[in-house]
Amino acid sequence: MAKSVDILLINAHVLTMDEELKQFNPGAVAVQGKEIAAVGPETDIKQAYTAAQVLDCGGKILMPGLVNAHTHVPMTLLRGLADDLRLDVWLMGYMMPVERQFVSPEFVRLGTLLACAELIKTGVTAFADMYYFEEDVAKATAEAGLRAVCSQTVLKFPTPDAQSYEDSLAYSRDFIQRWKEHDLIVPSVAPHAPYTCTPEILKATAELAAEFDVPLHTHLAETALERENMRNETGMPVIPYVKKQGLFDAKVLAAHCVHIDTGEIRTLLHAGAGVAHNPSSNLKLASGVAPVPKMLEGGLNVGIGTDGPASNNDLDMFEEVRLAAFLAKGISGDPTSLPASQALTMATRLGANALHIGHLTGSLEPGKRADLILVDISPLHNSPRFRRDPDNAYAQIVYASKSTDVTDVMVNGKWLLRGRQLLTLNEQELLANAADVAKRIDSFLIEREQSVLSKLIALGGLMEQESFEVQIKVKVDDLTPVHAGMKKGEIETMRFRHYRQYDNYFLFGGDEGRVRFREDDLIDAKGEVGTVRTRLTLIGPAREGKFDHDVLLSRSRFLAPADHTLRFYREYFKPQSEIAVQKDRHRWLIKYKDTEFFVNLDTMEQPSLGSYVEIKSRTWSRKDADNKAKLVGELLAVIGAADGKTVTQDYIEIVQESE
Amino acid sequence: MAKSVDILLINAHVLTMDEELKQFNPGAVAVQGKEIAAVGPETDIKQAYTAAQVLDCGGKILMPGLVNAHTHVPMTLLRGLADDLRLDVWLMGYMMPVERQFVSPEFVRLGTLLACAELIKTGVTAFADMYYFEEDVAKATAEAGLRAVCSQTVLKFPTPDAQSYEDSLAYSRDFIQRWKEHDLIVPSVAPHAPYTCTPEILKATAELAAEFDVPLHTHLAETALERENMRNETGMPVIPYVKKQGLFDAKVLAAHCVHIDTGEIRTLLHAGAGVAHNPSSNLKLASGVAPVPKMLEGGLNVGIGTDGPASNNDLDMFEEVRLAAFLAKGISGDPTSLPASQALTMATRLGANALHIGHLTGSLEPGKRADLILVDISPLHNSPRFRRDPDNAYAQIVYASKSTDVTDVMVNGKWLLRGRQLLTLNEQELLANAADVAKRIDSFLIEREQSVLSKLIALGGLMEQESFEVQIKVKVDDLTPVHAGMKKGEIETMRFRHYRQYDNYFLFGGDEGRVRFREDDLIDAKGEVGTVRTRLTLIGPAREGKFDHDVLLSRSRFLAPADHTLRFYREYFKPQSEIAVQKDRHRWLIKYKDTEFFVNLDTMEQPSLGSYVEIKSRTWSRKDADNKAKLVGELLAVIGAADGKTVTQDYIEIVQESE
Repeated sequence: MAKSVDILLINAHVLTMDEELKQFNPGAVAVQGKEIAAVGPETDIKQAYTAAQVLDCGGKILMPGLVNAHTHVPMTLLRGLADDLRLDVWLMGYMMPVERQFVSPEFVRLGTLLACAELIKTGVTAFADMYYFEEDVAKATAEAGLRAVCSQTVLKFPTPDAQSYEDSLAYSRDFIQRWKEHDLIVPSVAPHAPYTCTPEILKATAELAAEFDVPLHTHLAETALERENMRNETGMPVIPYVKKQGLFDAKVLAAHCVHIDTGEIRTLLHAGAGVAHNPSSNLKLASGVAPVPKMLEGGLNVGIGTDGPASNNDLDMFEEVRLAAFLAKGISGDPTSLPASQALTMATRLGANALHIGHLTGSLEPGKRADLILVDISPLHNSPRFRRDPDNAYAQIVYASKSTDVTDVMVNGKWLLRGRQLLTLNEQELLANAADVAKRIDSFLIEREQSVLSKLIALGGLMEQESFEVQIKVKVDDLTPVHAGMKKGEIETMRFRHYRQYDNYFLFGGDEGRVRFREDDLIDAKGEVGTVRTRLTLIGPAREGKFDHDVLLSRSRFLAPADHTLRFYREYFKPQSEIAVQKDRHRWLIKYKDTEFFVNLDTMEQPSLGSYVEIKSRTWSRKDADNKAKLVGELLAVIGAADGKTVTQDYIEIVQESE
Repeated sequence: MAKSVDILLINAHVLTMDEELKQFNPGAVAVQGKEIAAVGPETDIKQAYTAAQVLDCGGKILMPGLVNAHTHVPMTLLRGLADDLRLDVWLMGYMMPVERQFVSPEFVRLGTLLACAELIKTGVTAFADMYYFEEDVAKATAEAGLRAVCSQTVLKFPTPDAQSYEDSLAYSRDFIQRWKEHDLIVPSVAPHAPYTCTPEILKATAELAAEFDVPLHTHLAETALERENMRNETGMPVIPYVKKQGLFDAKVLAAHCVHIDTGEIRTLLHAGAGVAHNPSSNLKLASGVAPVPKMLEGGLNVGIGTDGPASNNDLDMFEEVRLAAFLAKGISGDPTSLPASQALTMATRLGANALHIGHLTGSLEPGKRADLILVDISPLHNSPRFRRDPDNAYAQIVYASKSTDVTDVMVNGKWLLRGRQLLTLNEQELLANAADVAKRIDSFLIEREQSVLSKLIALGGLMEQESFEVQIKVKVDDLTPVHAGMKKGEIETMRFRHYRQYDNYFLFGGDEGRVRFREDDLIDAKGEVGTVRTRLTLIGPAREGKFDHDVLLSRSRFLAPADHTLRFYREYFKPQSEIAVQKDRHRWLIKYKDTEFFVNLDTMEQPSLGSYVEIKSRTWSRKDADNKAKLVGELLAVIGAADGKTVTQDYIEIVQESE
């Protein structure tokens, strides 16, 4: 006597993706409520079950939905915002400034819905996300009907959704408590990465995840730089370091793991951690290629992820699976490495295991949730087809199918896509809203990029200063007598430093001024380099006023600590040209007649353009400036530099004139 | 006064892909006959031209069609036939046997039409092909309306379309003469590769191409093995070697160039050669990654190709362009390497240059042929879009567009695709015919794979022998006295050899027999290894008859020279298990009483299982066998081995029993 179920899917080529990689062709699947009731040969299933809804899947492969093991879905709204840039320029020059300005619960909601539409249409039924306002990601995902591990980001610096890590942690706890029993969403916490989190954050987030038995999602060993820095700072590779912080007390989903060795693979395995391999993102950002065949040999649950669409630039898992299979072969030199069946297993069952939701999804097995897709394998680009090799069906999906061949998608027993039509989302409305947001972001960036100053400010962390300086500079033949002069009784030395200064000037057209990247190497008494400091200065072009002795009143600068490398700023500011200057500087802070002055005795070494005496003072008023200009004249005479030839140019201008 | 043209394409985002990468948005293109009459800002073009056919391209990018720089279009019929195999197993175990059996003018025609349908739908307007019966490829391509360089393959061994290279060369000459003035087809000759052609073939094909000023298409430096072998055999890298043969007297299109150095890049450049980079194929077959950024820096015309669909497994140039851009970044470690605009240039203008048809196609410029496509950049997976960076349009096409976003394709001023509908080909008919061919190939291979013997025969070059052997084997404690016995007067030594033999037995279930891969190392008088010979033997399970002294009459074997490596045969035959045996063999061909016998004095070294005397003779009849069995008994006594314990097992069985 046949049992009645809700839905029967018949006449399909069924790829179960279970442990034995069972296939049924023609095969059938019976769905009852949220669950798969049965999977098997069509004749068996048809004998055992009847249903009101019977779907003929002729010419199609019926398989578990794909699992996107790592992404940042709201960043779909930033797709194609900035490409072909180095990671730091891309992240700190574009992504983070835009995120600081635009990311809000509404932004996150729209980005998530847009992403869900794309994910559903391309055959994804579950994904692991990491972003800000993650509860809004969860809400939108549940609304779209997809399954997801939603991980709230925690960082050691302020984020769009929190001023401190304590706030993020409290938010994460609330979010996990509220969503823990949800049918589609697994709430989770995401300490962003070892280098963006303190040991305290790693420990606290692991404890939180363990307390509620939810996954912990993080980025580990993405770049060679991360591995190098970790080794330099802690003497350890990345995986042992996070283990030491107790990270593996939680069920970890680790994205990337590009730069790990065999020992670290074992550690991940013993910790029961899952890994998300992101081949497109790792290539596009030039992070490298993860040792996927080694991880799989070790028995690790390695899933495949797209990473965020801002660095991919889409959420197409068909592309990722193909690339994963290609890359493993090309890099190992072994064309039998990562065959199609194994690549597809990564994108389904292993991915679900990596997300720690393998008990719910990832394969077509009775008792698991009905998360499944139909793929049309009859189109032109997938013809003809061969039957000799049972692995041919996997090869068809991995090497020739396109995401646009997905026709139907079911999650948790509910149809989300039928005949390529979205059932839970309004695509046109999402596209229109996304276009609006993009327009606003475009305006923001276009305005920012109109001036060097606004690009500098956009980097954040900037001390914006506007003061005035009284300044004189004279060229002298020999600094020796001036050094002696600095010891005279009228001069009270408050501070003295010896520097070697390496300046790189970025030059722009028009009224943009100049950006100077300065490295100050402090030279100790033995003549050796002590601390090194880097600073960024925007020097405006304007000069106002001129006093006796060619003392200048110059508009001064915007200063910022240079957190990034010279190369970063070069690629970020894209100067028209660049000039490097190296000089030796003895710098005093002195008092003369109760007034503070800076005195620099400078020798230009590269290019070799002579010795100079500079006297400077900050000032707050025109009257004060007049007075200080007079004192500067006196001071020059006192230290024996009055004969020097007055120079009104900056060092950079001296160099330019010499060329 | 506006000039009248045939077609105006307006309101498009035009990417000209010309030298300056000019863009017009909104832009327009005027088409007159086969040619582009004008390209520019929409307002300018609309003022200058009118047309009966005006097409509004709103929301779409209008760009030159993609150029697939290297493929084997008829192999579309072999898509997915065999995957995840090593190159030699894939090529010699599957592709070549199937090609020997199936490739005909009809096969080539159908495969080409099927490929053209896929190429048109995915935005390709020109391609470079290399196959057999190339005139049939040319006919089918012209019928479909696509532009192509069609290259007739020349090889040093028999091909599906020629018994000798002279035949191929004559065919090539006829073909080139007939098609030289064709509007769409550029006929060409293709010496397959340096390792599959003799120096004479390379020279003759280059002369032919030069005589008619047509391109010469070849595979160069695809694998590390090719480079190593070339260096071992000629002392030269691949590019200098072919230069020496005069290859660059012709306009060369070189596919792959994976394993070349800076000097070879310079040689290609000076020779005016074009290169086809095939990232999917190079990864999938684990050939490696070509040094594309270096080639481009050097100024080479590097196009992008899919290679044949049997090793890709599709003709999707959107995938190839994206992969080329990703791979260059990931391998160089520089994310600014091969930016989107440059990758798309490779797939258009540089590709056309590489094919030596850059004067006709590859960019939208007045006077070039109207080979263009429209790409819808409004779909979900390409939203939203940003305008700040002028390179954003390239990033959209390269990083997020899919081939299914192509809506319209024009070649030579003629529409081939409108609104995603093919205008020159009947897709359903092609699919049905392709399915028929696939079914026949499937049956052929399924039958072949039913027995080890038929798999062996399918490899080709096999000497199929069936003779009978009279054979005795005795185990002795010491071979020294037997060696002395071999010198007795009754025995006339006709030949003597000392071998070290390394045997690998492949074992199968059932009645399949065994395959033995034997390496014979000939040991010279000094005890050093001289020539090395490898042979493959299929040993049937049957034994027939038994004589006195346990002399056996055994059904003998199918022998073949082992052209390939042990590893090849292992992966090709996929044995259930494998046993290795190493022995020392002194082997005589003698005459005893006017009858020829082989005598082997063998010591099993690995595993160490003692010493044996074997006496064998070929026989043609039962009566002859009876007589020889008697003589064998006598001979044993003469050489002093009559006391030895008779053994009826093969060495492999002795090993099996010892385990």
